[in-house]
Amino acid sequence: MTRREFGKLTTGISAVAAAQDLTDRSVLPGVWRLRFGTPESITPVTTRFYQPARDRISSLPAVQQPPIALNAIAGTASARGFEVRLPLQGGEAIYGLVLQFHSVLQRGLKKKLRVNADPVADIGDTHAPVPFYVSSSGYGVLIDSARYVNIYCGNKVKKHTRRPRTSGIDATRVAAELPASFSRYNVGEQSDVLVEISRAQGVDIYLFAGPTMRQAVQRYNLFSGGGALPPRWGLGFWYRCYGKFNQSEVLQLASELRQEQIPCDVLGLEPGWQSHSYSCSFAWSDDFPDAATMLSRLKDAAYKVNLWEHAFTHPSSPIYKPLYEHSGNYEVWDGLVPDFLDLEARNIFGGYHDRELISKGIAGFKLDECDNSDYTGNWSFPELSQFPSKADGEQMHSLFGLHYQQTVQSVYVRHGLRTFGLVRSSHALAAPFPYVLYSDLYGHRDFVRALVNSGFSGLLWCPEVRDAIDKEDLVRRLQCVIFSPLAMVNAWYIRNPPWKQVERDANNAGKFSEDSREVEGICRKLIELRMQLLPYIYAAFVRYHLEGLPPVRALALDYSDDVKTWTIDDQYMFGDDLLVAPLFAGQTQRQAYLPKGEWCDFWTGELYTGSHMVSVTAPLDHIPVFVKAGTLLPLAQPTLHTDDPNAFVLTVRAYGSGDGNATLFEDDGSMKPDFTRVSIRWEENEPAGKLERFGRIYAKTYTVRTWERVRAS
Amino acid sequence: MTRREFGKLTTGISAVAAAQDLTDRSVLPGVWRLRFGTPESITPVTTRFYQPARDRISSLPAVQQPPIALNAIAGTASARGFEVRLPLQGGEAIYGLVLQFHSVLQRGLKKKLRVNADPVADIGDTHAPVPFYVSSSGYGVLIDSARYVNIYCGNKVKKHTRRPRTSGIDATRVAAELPASFSRYNVGEQSDVLVEISRAQGVDIYLFAGPTMRQAVQRYNLFSGGGALPPRWGLGFWYRCYGKFNQSEVLQLASELRQEQIPCDVLGLEPGWQSHSYSCSFAWSDDFPDAATMLSRLKDAAYKVNLWEHAFTHPSSPIYKPLYEHSGNYEVWDGLVPDFLDLEARNIFGGYHDRELISKGIAGFKLDECDNSDYTGNWSFPELSQFPSKADGEQMHSLFGLHYQQTVQSVYVRHGLRTFGLVRSSHALAAPFPYVLYSDLYGHRDFVRALVNSGFSGLLWCPEVRDAIDKEDLVRRLQCVIFSPLAMVNAWYIRNPPWKQVERDANNAGKFSEDSREVEGICRKLIELRMQLLPYIYAAFVRYHLEGLPPVRALALDYSDDVKTWTIDDQYMFGDDLLVAPLFAGQTQRQAYLPKGEWCDFWTGELYTGSHMVSVTAPLDHIPVFVKAGTLLPLAQPTLHTDDPNAFVLTVRAYGSGDGNATLFEDDGSMKPDFTRVSIRWEENEPAGKLERFGRIYAKTYTVRTWERVRAS
Repeated sequence: MTRREFGKLTTGISAVAAAQDLTDRSVLPGVWRLRFGTPESITPVTTRFYQPARDRISSLPAVQQPPIALNAIAGTASARGFEVRLPLQGGEAIYGLVLQFHSVLQRGLKKKLRVNADPVADIGDTHAPVPFYVSSSGYGVLIDSARYVNIYCGNKVKKHTRRPRTSGIDATRVAAELPASFSRYNVGEQSDVLVEISRAQGVDIYLFAGPTMRQAVQRYNLFSGGGALPPRWGLGFWYRCYGKFNQSEVLQLASELRQEQIPCDVLGLEPGWQSHSYSCSFAWSDDFPDAATMLSRLKDAAYKVNLWEHAFTHPSSPIYKPLYEHSGNYEVWDGLVPDFLDLEARNIFGGYHDRELISKGIAGFKLDECDNSDYTGNWSFPELSQFPSKADGEQMHSLFGLHYQQTVQSVYVRHGLRTFGLVRSSHALAAPFPYVLYSDLYGHRDFVRALVNSGFSGLLWCPEVRDAIDKEDLVRRLQCVIFSPLAMVNAWYIRNPPWKQVERDANNAGKFSEDSREVEGICRKLIELRMQLLPYIYAAFVRYHLEGLPPVRALALDYSDDVKTWTIDDQYMFGDDLLVAPLFAGQTQRQAYLPKGEWCDFWTGELYTGSHMVSVTAPLDHIPVFVKAGTLLPLAQPTLHTDDPNAFVLTVRAYGSGDGNATLFEDDGSMKPDFTRVSIRWEENEPAGKLERFGRIYAKTYTVRTWERVRAS
Repeated sequence: MTRREFGKLTTGISAVAAAQDLTDRSVLPGVWRLRFGTPESITPVTTRFYQPARDRISSLPAVQQPPIALNAIAGTASARGFEVRLPLQGGEAIYGLVLQFHSVLQRGLKKKLRVNADPVADIGDTHAPVPFYVSSSGYGVLIDSARYVNIYCGNKVKKHTRRPRTSGIDATRVAAELPASFSRYNVGEQSDVLVEISRAQGVDIYLFAGPTMRQAVQRYNLFSGGGALPPRWGLGFWYRCYGKFNQSEVLQLASELRQEQIPCDVLGLEPGWQSHSYSCSFAWSDDFPDAATMLSRLKDAAYKVNLWEHAFTHPSSPIYKPLYEHSGNYEVWDGLVPDFLDLEARNIFGGYHDRELISKGIAGFKLDECDNSDYTGNWSFPELSQFPSKADGEQMHSLFGLHYQQTVQSVYVRHGLRTFGLVRSSHALAAPFPYVLYSDLYGHRDFVRALVNSGFSGLLWCPEVRDAIDKEDLVRRLQCVIFSPLAMVNAWYIRNPPWKQVERDANNAGKFSEDSREVEGICRKLIELRMQLLPYIYAAFVRYHLEGLPPVRALALDYSDDVKTWTIDDQYMFGDDLLVAPLFAGQTQRQAYLPKGEWCDFWTGELYTGSHMVSVTAPLDHIPVFVKAGTLLPLAQPTLHTDDPNAFVLTVRAYGSGDGNATLFEDDGSMKPDFTRVSIRWEENEPAGKLERFGRIYAKTYTVRTWERVRAS
């Protein structure tokens, strides 16, 4: 009934991709492919849009030997599908399979990686079920499948195969240092990762060398094509308007934000902009009788416009008829399901978006509802659907969000325009897509855990702010979103900004809270902080783009040799030098773990010694943030939007006593810029530092107005 | 890639069962089988233990025509597996696919029927994923599969196949009468039930005629073999002891319950009785140095003993070695997974239980952990496991609980002994097994919803009482379990009865609440009520056994022509004449819907006119229960256990003004008794009624001491 085989080794990437998408057939350094049986034809790799960033992979450390013994990886075909077994050492932790909301350390867990909106349980359902994991031992594994892959992360023991604990790792120490709740997972024992791919008769497994876990992630992200590079405005502040606003109400809100001195770069329009939205017409509604004028006025006020939509296409849409033959055999909300794996469907869908929206100035989109729906009303297409591309509903669910991104991204690529947007589902190889995941779920702690997890598998996450229980909840949530890839308030169900009234019904009735001015003030300061951090955040994204290093990372990714970081799910690295330890509503104090080295309080400069748990307090208007001692942190002058030239005027803060340096980037904002590297240095005893520029001079360039040393009094 | 075919019609049951299990090949009235493609060899029907109750099916109304047009049912094979489409009319509701915790009306939902412990979401994971549903139009459908069947209950629309709403049902009226929250499910439209069975290349579909929905359930239960018939003691009160009690502590508790006049028939021992429990040795621990004496003393005190266990067999168990070759290829908690589909495994496992436990007086078992574990620590065997019987892990998960019951039941059958026990997983055709489902989840409302749902698919459910938030929560929970198939307090993690202290830590520290005497008094009264209801409950179970009518039923099952009952998930029928509308902690009042007819308050006799929503209040010591007007309700004298002859001394209560009658049953307690029917009648104007007996006279017979009319003053 079953046959067992060992994978065929290939040092190189697959060449089975659709011809229009993949031309690169060369070997990639530190990336191995093992082919088992006959892989399926529709997978993340075979349908990829972005090519591997081969030159940049070469700049990672050379690794000659595969990171795990290849003859220890075995594949087995059975009537159920295909099974792959990968070894796991005692004391080895694994991460990824994101975007999980409910767990960070995956060793010991089972995950059925199935795309789903609003998963409330830790069983593998997620907006972005990426079949990629990384090991604390410094390698990554991609299972190249669009199936709902079942992964048992080292918790299944074959009968009578007790194995010794010995390995290169001090497994006993690891097991001892983990919290007691992890003891049941037998982390100290040798085990396997078991992968089951239903229906498949083979699979390609890609191994990514490190040598560190962080470098394995970088290698995976560069294999994916490198990290997304948003436009600068995408890193400013976003505000999504009430869904029922009409054209003049949108303009009124845009004007109010400017008057009230709330920085804002992007205005998002929610379903009400369309003549039909469930399913979508992709055409302006009667509430927007002169969209061109509105867009022109918003442009004059330096706003970018982002439009909500989903892909299910209503009969009233101009693209319904042309899409009909290029869609699945089931409807969603009376609408067609475009077959985004079909080039013609992408052309019809993308072409319309180009002509009617993107060419008319729409800067980006929020791609909603592209996940599945078992948890929420079950509105999506069944897994047994069939598509012209020969994908079934299961494969299409896995890849739908990814190829929806690709469809829209192709248009921006054609125009040479950067965009930044939101998407509700993604999958493997997603790093180059300038889209940030979000959810209808709203647990603040889950949102932080998603931030922590996102960096493991090439995803970005937005812990968006909607309403709140009280002002404390609002401010604490806003603090997190400020220290995230996309800083957004999503007011789609409230008429007024949440700082005027957190309670939904009262907000919509226009009853503002008594302390609304005070709360607005705190929020304005936080949004201004986002604007100040923009040069630093942009630099982190350039590193994501060029080096594959995620801008938001679990502590375990940067400090994988420190077991105490392995289970931390409520702190994260933000860029190179900042460690964020958010507070949640109801907390005035928390414990935070600081890894090795010295750390400074972002606000006061107070010095902490690392490798310790510390107790942090922060007033409501401060979020606990720690800066690596020695950091030069360049902060921009806060502006109302990124178009303002003052956004390039810096105050450079030096933390700690040592000499610091920082790197920023300037460019022309195009899709493939030559980056000008801006090096900032400041000797300890000098009254001011130096800014040096390597590369051409662009219209907007950084200048330093103030040099500040931040030290605890 | 796909081929479509129509099922082959057979009026009769399958004959593909294992020879030792199925000898009946005859046609069954009102049951049709449609065979599509080549069904799998391991299914609930092919591995069944109980035979259909063919004589009793014949006593249901004759139905000549299949309940749905057979040529409207289509099957399609694809690379994914097998798909079956069954028609659904506008205005038709469907139920079942139990044991669901989170929804009752299934139309509009998708369920992936996958066995799982503690499912927190409404996606189909459940302790008992029975692939059987019933329709408000009066028929049932069994999908005979041990796969994780995917069922889309009328919510998926094929592209461009809008269908009219016309059907025999007034679909517009139905849609209008349902709560607004159901509008999204398009209940008014014609649709399909889509069934997808992964990996299978065919399937048998069984159709069960009604003509009513209730009769369709009866027909399914009789096809399963008829409902379970518990021993009388099984319907008394159960108390499961603290898991760490030793032998003398168990005896001490047994003695206390008698001293404190708390009725109790069954004492349950939890893991501590075994020398090794995760995995299990099935041998007494050192804390029970003389189990034989303990059992003898408990027997003298009229207690029955029920032992906790699970099936995963520890290396220290005497049956480890013999089971080794008859177990799956993965371990659970270092233990073997017995292949309960393998006769030899059942003989080894059952034989040991017989010799060491059942023959020594153990009256029954609690079969724990036989579900799967995606939600809770992921401790069970993987779906890719392989078993000697050729079942894979998925099929074994579906059938494990069912065949665990069979393994133990076979022993009791061999002895001709009735048992009653608990099990954490079940599946199709389970009605004859005298096992009641339970869960580690503890939501009181979910527990009531499970009671409501259980009757749709031949399952019994115990809303067991453990600890509580406060005394109100305790009493409200106890009230529900009194009106349930198995009345149990499960004190496995508390040393003392919860009425002494509801809070867990305080309970274990022996700190009793100030009002413990008062709370104990309320609880005693409720447990006495259980003992009083026992003749009535036993009669309901005899009807389950003989006629397939579940003792606990959704209102929709008895009143399927009343759309107002369709979505009720917090009231249920208990036996023929009682309608229970439980209160939950925090409530002093609730709305309850009374169907057509007249109803009397159980406590006061107050008369209500049905087809109305009524407002009910009840003091803490009363649960709202309504009695059909005209009912003669025989209540036994409360005794400390069912062995007491006074348990047969009745007070007969007449509710309402009409003439009443009631039927009770007497028998010898054996496995296949000749029931003596006891008919009780009471003319309105007579001072007392009559008891007539049809059948032989047994040692214990009912007598009526008191005749009471219950009327509101």
